[in-house]
Amino acid sequence: MTVPGVNRVPPLPDVILEPLVRAALQEDLGRAGDLTTDAIVSPEARTRTRLVAREHGVLAGLDLARIAFRLLDPSLRFEARLQDGDDLAPGAEIAVISGSARAMLTAERCALNFLGHLSGVASATASIGRAIAPYGTKVTCTRKTMPGMRALQKYAVRVGGGSNHRFGLDDAVLIKDNHIAVAGGVRAAVEAARAYIGHLVCIEVEVDTLEQLDEVLELGVDSILLDNMDTDTLKQAVDRVAGRAKTEASGRITPETAVQIARCGVDRIAVGWITHSARVLDIGLDA
Amino acid sequence: MTVPGVNRVPPLPDVILEPLVRAALQEDLGRAGDLTTDAIVSPEARTRTRLVAREHGVLAGLDLARIAFRLLDPSLRFEARLQDGDDLAPGAEIAVISGSARAMLTAERCALNFLGHLSGVASATASIGRAIAPYGTKVTCTRKTMPGMRALQKYAVRVGGGSNHRFGLDDAVLIKDNHIAVAGGVRAAVEAARAYIGHLVCIEVEVDTLEQLDEVLELGVDSILLDNMDTDTLKQAVDRVAGRAKTEASGRITPETAVQIARCGVDRIAVGWITHSARVLDIGLDA
Amino acid sequence: MTVPGVNRVPPLPDVILEPLVRAALQEDLGRAGDLTTDAIVSPEARTRTRLVAREHGVLAGLDLARIAFRLLDPSLRFEARLQDGDDLAPGAEIAVISGSARAMLTAERCALNFLGHLSGVASATASIGRAIAPYGTKVTCTRKTMPGMRALQKYAVRVGGGSNHRFGLDDAVLIKDNHIAVAGGVRAAVEAARAYIGHLVCIEVEVDTLEQLDEVLELGVDSILLDNMDTDTLKQAVDRVAGRAKTEASGRITPETAVQIARCGVDRIAVGWITHSARVLDIGLDA
Amino acid sequence: MTVPGVNRVPPLPDVILEPLVRAALQEDLGRAGDLTTDAIVSPEARTRTRLVAREHGVLAGLDLARIAFRLLDPSLRFEARLQDGDDLAPGAEIAVISGSARAMLTAERCALNFLGHLSGVASATASIGRAIAPYGTKVTCTRKTMPGMRALQKYAVRVGGGSNHRFGLDDAVLIKDNHIAVAGGVRAAVEAARAYIGHLVCIEVEVDTLEQLDEVLELGVDSILLDNMDTDTLKQAVDRVAGRAKTEASGRITPETAVQIARCGVDRIAVGWITHSARVLDIGLDA
Amino acid sequence: MTVPGVNRVPPLPDVILEPLVRAALQEDLGRAGDLTTDAIVSPEARTRTRLVAREHGVLAGLDLARIAFRLLDPSLRFEARLQDGDDLAPGAEIAVISGSARAMLTAERCALNFLGHLSGVASATASIGRAIAPYGTKVTCTRKTMPGMRALQKYAVRVGGGSNHRFGLDDAVLIKDNHIAVAGGVRAAVEAARAYIGHLVCIEVEVDTLEQLDEVLELGVDSILLDNMDTDTLKQAVDRVAGRAKTEASGRITPETAVQIARCGVDRIAVGWITHSARVLDIGLDA
Amino acid sequence: MTVPGVNRVPPLPDVILEPLVRAALQEDLGRAGDLTTDAIVSPEARTRTRLVAREHGVLAGLDLARIAFRLLDPSLRFEARLQDGDDLAPGAEIAVISGSARAMLTAERCALNFLGHLSGVASATASIGRAIAPYGTKVTCTRKTMPGMRALQKYAVRVGGGSNHRFGLDDAVLIKDNHIAVAGGVRAAVEAARAYIGHLVCIEVEVDTLEQLDEVLELGVDSILLDNMDTDTLKQAVDRVAGRAKTEASGRITPETAVQIARCGVDRIAVGWITHSARVLDIGLDA
Repeated sequence: MTVPGVNRVPPLPDVILEPLVRAALQEDLGRAGDLTTDAIVSPEARTRTRLVAREHGVLAGLDLARIAFRLLDPSLRFEARLQDGDDLAPGAEIAVISGSARAMLTAERCALNFLGHLSGVASATASIGRAIAPYGTKVTCTRKTMPGMRALQKYAVRVGGGSNHRFGLDDAVLIKDNHIAVAGGVRAAVEAARAYIGHLVCIEVEVDTLEQLDEVLELGVDSILLDNMDTDTLKQAVDRVAGRAKTEASGRITPETAVQIARCGVDRIAVGWITHSARVLDIGLDA
Repeated sequence: MTVPGVNRVPPLPDVILEPLVRAALQEDLGRAGDLTTDAIVSPEARTRTRLVAREHGVLAGLDLARIAFRLLDPSLRFEARLQDGDDLAPGAEIAVISGSARAMLTAERCALNFLGHLSGVASATASIGRAIAPYGTKVTCTRKTMPGMRALQKYAVRVGGGSNHRFGLDDAVLIKDNHIAVAGGVRAAVEAARAYIGHLVCIEVEVDTLEQLDEVLELGVDSILLDNMDTDTLKQAVDRVAGRAKTEASGRITPETAVQIARCGVDRIAVGWITHSARVLDIGLDA
Repeated sequence: MTVPGVNRVPPLPDVILEPLVRAALQEDLGRAGDLTTDAIVSPEARTRTRLVAREHGVLAGLDLARIAFRLLDPSLRFEARLQDGDDLAPGAEIAVISGSARAMLTAERCALNFLGHLSGVASATASIGRAIAPYGTKVTCTRKTMPGMRALQKYAVRVGGGSNHRFGLDDAVLIKDNHIAVAGGVRAAVEAARAYIGHLVCIEVEVDTLEQLDEVLELGVDSILLDNMDTDTLKQAVDRVAGRAKTEASGRITPETAVQIARCGVDRIAVGWITHSARVLDIGLDA
Repeated sequence: MTVPGVNRVPPLPDVILEPLVRAALQEDLGRAGDLTTDAIVSPEARTRTRLVAREHGVLAGLDLARIAFRLLDPSLRFEARLQDGDDLAPGAEIAVISGSARAMLTAERCALNFLGHLSGVASATASIGRAIAPYGTKVTCTRKTMPGMRALQKYAVRVGGGSNHRFGLDDAVLIKDNHIAVAGGVRAAVEAARAYIGHLVCIEVEVDTLEQLDEVLELGVDSILLDNMDTDTLKQAVDRVAGRAKTEASGRITPETAVQIARCGVDRIAVGWITHSARVLDIGLDA
Repeated sequence: MTVPGVNRVPPLPDVILEPLVRAALQEDLGRAGDLTTDAIVSPEARTRTRLVAREHGVLAGLDLARIAFRLLDPSLRFEARLQDGDDLAPGAEIAVISGSARAMLTAERCALNFLGHLSGVASATASIGRAIAPYGTKVTCTRKTMPGMRALQKYAVRVGGGSNHRFGLDDAVLIKDNHIAVAGGVRAAVEAARAYIGHLVCIEVEVDTLEQLDEVLELGVDSILLDNMDTDTLKQAVDRVAGRAKTEASGRITPETAVQIARCGVDRIAVGWITHSARVLDIGLDA
Repeated sequence: MTVPGVNRVPPLPDVILEPLVRAALQEDLGRAGDLTTDAIVSPEARTRTRLVAREHGVLAGLDLARIAFRLLDPSLRFEARLQDGDDLAPGAEIAVISGSARAMLTAERCALNFLGHLSGVASATASIGRAIAPYGTKVTCTRKTMPGMRALQKYAVRVGGGSNHRFGLDDAVLIKDNHIAVAGGVRAAVEAARAYIGHLVCIEVEVDTLEQLDEVLELGVDSILLDNMDTDTLKQAVDRVAGRAKTEASGRITPETAVQIARCGVDRIAVGWITHSARVLDIGLDA
């Protein structure tokens, strides 16, 4: 049931996930807990429910759902039928949960909020990714993420077959026009960066024109961000790079324009909306 | 410059906002800070930049942007030209920021992530809200929010002219089909809730049919959630309620279907996607 | 063993309780742990002890005691003999704990601090609550709580048969004289509140005189706080309300005056001292 | 205006107090802030209010009130008229606060909860302390404190002229009957403790009888806790100690019995209820 | 296998240790987890590895290593072969760990960082401690510790057979030259301290000369810090104290000078470098 | 006064530093604050003191000292005379601090603990770094850091003229022998890593022999870790690499052996002890 072109990515460890789920549960439970369920449902009531997909997409975030249910009741049984990265179709059974009805009703929304959003990110990534895969191009994400959710969203991008860009300001150098202006030229900027960073930090430089590209190519950087170029220029740019650096295209790329851009031969296409504007994937609980 | 139909809503106090911005900055700065800016931009460099809208929408989250920039450099000057709730058009100047170039470049993405997302939520809310305002109907949100962002997203809904539903499981009772099933009937469920909650907690009950509605109306609840009804049934439902409870329609309501539903006379339309699937509003920094 | 008139209230989930117990243990253990026990008691020593009531009252907080002991040693056996809400008499055995002597001695004070205080709150609530129950009146709490302990104290009020007032400034509207003065009249204040809040938020208004009451009754609010009225006025007030709103009496009500006030027919009596000045209930550990 | 016998104690630094006030404000503001005030009071409204005592007592916690108001609005003016440790009488003006009406109304309850409780602790301490001062005896507190409030409650005890006992399990050794039983005798217990602790840690031993006392006196401990002794025995005990150790009496001591116990000549009287059952001191805000 | 002169000290409870290990793991795992291991090692891979000493020393911190591995995978088997306080020699097998290869590779560095550093502190303490044990003198630590590591470093000092000095500014009084200068004399300083502190707080005073010592001896303090004295003066000082107070020598004491100082008969030798400059003890993982 | 070969490195922003200083102060102040200073020193006392070096080294951590003093008293004046990266000699005046004597005495140790340790790390780094600078070789650090201090220690390495290695497991790939064994060969390991990571993540591979080196050179990795090679082999290795990858030497390198290794022409020398075993640099406060 593994999706072709979508990798089975390693899960994030619970030691990273659990604090995020605890915080989300506390946000939802507030100061009095689940008034409705606590009032109406007996603590002895047991039930069995199923996590079910209601539309096509790629599953991501199942560990978070498991942790949410278990934090309400450690004795609850959570049987995963699918794994992150699996393809979903309407009606696909994702997991079967059995145990305390109270715990299930209380944790449900928190679990679904993680699952729906992250599956939405993974699905958006996969939908573009599959379209451009024939051209050897991959989707990459940006730092345009939801505050507090970066590690999870970037994980969902990987699950959707995408590739991660920087996780923060601290793990790679990305020199943009502002930096170049301040530095008084791209060469000065790259040299300043190189003098400062460690030997395991990559440098990417953003260029808007072929002239800038030529200048950057002499500097031996790891990756070049080709920003807002039309497809003609982009194609020429990729030709000029000729494998001397990785190439990444950016600039309001939509699912519609992605294939044309991929055809130009860039290695990566950066898409902000897969994290900042992803639509939720509809996943629900059924009896 | 106030948008008709969009209220100037009270801001959330900094004592709530600041910890969220600190966490977002730490997420972005990681363990080494902004490698690129630190390497290239002199600590003495001063600059002036402007927060500018690139599309139409409603502004929300300006306090978070101010806090983000100020946490990097308290001496930075942040002059707001607009306020949350103001209407945006392409080119609208939102704020002028002047001071340390390093601080500005480092805080920029964090500030924009808050601002773009919350303005997206406010704009989505406003776009539906204005369409249904002539019918006396308001948009209301749900608990389908981004983990960790509920207080902010609900604030953005208010800014966009919407009205807030429950903030968590603990501040109102919402009796759904599962609860009714477990309780052995809606009367039993409402009575159990009423026995448990305080005198300042409202009860809303979800109904799918007019028969259920009749049963609930006898129970004197505060609000009735009319779920997934076609417009004919919905209209009849509103007529039967006849002001004895507030009415709320829900069930995959889209901008397209909202007006038809509003015409049925319901008080509130619940829309999940304004928080779980809102598109970012494009706001940037210009020289 | 359930106390008549005292409900078996749903417990708060461990995901809410555990962080509070962890913080309390860390406050007590400091930087070196339990010097006395660690020095004197062998890690292999096993013992058996009993949580025992030393006076009459209502039990509340047993989950917190369990968590405290278990956090010191997860293998410790904690057998509850009673539940929160049960009536206590001198000598009543609440729980039997067996396992590591070190863990027991170290966790003891932390467990008893929670248990004694919350049982004190529940017992104070119950002692007034039972006296006024014949008149159909319930005790309700206030926001006059110990900083950091609100969720727990409000839970103990429920356990003692009381009913919760607002949990914070954010889950209901309570319009007091200051607000009315600023708004320029009670009608303006109520309308401003109504325009701002969601459809599941209740409004209560405080009145001091019958004239104010009449004005408020026209506004259709959910609840009216009758503040500092003598019993004659209070009786008239309840008559005028005639079921059109819930009624709540407040103003330095003591166990002595509560019954007279209840006889006036109010629905709720607000009592601050059950949370801000509750006497500890004496519970100890016996061999 | 300093109270005789009540010391002007050094304040706790803001770096300790501020996180506690932040947490208390967040507990009260929840996810939506102060609905009532935000809806009704204009952000431009300015007001002036006074913190006023409504009964006799000793002031404690004024820094926390200042921090609470200032966290809502740093530009708010807080003029202290009195200091912690000052004697209060009905009508005494404690502080004058002027600035944003919203900030004042929102922070009021949080500020008063700290102030009323800590002044209650200080006042309870002072009321016993003054009665026993003529005999050279001081009140001391216990570890029977509100979870999360120990540092503040112990501070209030100092403000009330009392003296602090252990702050936790880690800063002094207190050998009780359980420890002695496990160790197989008081000598073994004291020796084990002495072998384990540092040279700046004191040892106190609890004794119930004069025989135990004699045994302990040979061991050269710093302090002896004379538990539950009648006044005759207590007097003999103090005589036998003859200054070779500090003496502390404990065991359900009330304001009524304290003087008789002090007359026996003990150095300290341990009173649990000043922290676990202190009545709030009535302090309010007046126009 | 217990080291003579090195006590088997009670462990710190997991409720104190676990948050420190969680923080250390999060510091190392960052936002993406262990890229190398996750990419290369199958989640099904199982392995067995051994914690092995590579040099002589004293083991400290094994609980932290166990917690680190278990937080990555609770099903991992961690069999301790030695305990904290045991003597290590090159090749000594400390623990055998078996289970998920991924968990082991990911947690390894975090576990070793704790183990190597704390064993380094314990070993440094023991190496001086054993040399001076024949003279009845013990090593004591200082407040010169790594920020955030004080509780752990002080524990390691105990494990190494040393004795703890103050844990913070709040658990004992240490009057230094600055305090004496401000107070206008040592008597005034001691009296001010005595008036302020509780009856279970010790007072130590620092003296540089025999004249100061004489003055302090009249004041009956618990301990005297003999700072920077040559061995002749130190010997005279100890003679003059004649058991009336504990004695502690300080002032850049090295392993080389410690024995000479111990010969002077002081009770404690304060050594800052065992916490602020301890060399890591080499412990590794072997197949 | 800038040290040749030691860069003026950009400071970490206060938003990262302040939480670390707060935690360190809370660790030191505990539950009662600075007993000694609070008892003896008047709140009105003002003083002036100087941060002074007592030995040769490189300054690092001055911002942390400033924050520590300011958190105790924001009105305290802190005038830096030197900056991080400046060379220190005995007697060098680092900063002049004036204001509240209480604040100064209370914050002193916390400030010095940060300053002494980080200056120790910077000085150790610089002392090796200067010796090998003539050969074009730089010192790099490792993940062998103090738990909780990684960001600060890595900063101090930069201040001392060193270059940072990975900050965690998540920002670069480092393939060691264990990974190669599990993967079934270095090629498989590198390919698995490359398939998983983003385009801005570097890959380094550890090799022990020239045969392994040849295999790795074909794979086009960013950096090669030459582990535990004798200088002959190392020299051959560097020759074979011939600029096709960065080279890093590791394996118990001491200040004594570093120059010989640098002479072999490697780009980086990894030294664990500059972070895990750095000696504190002696910095004190003088009147």
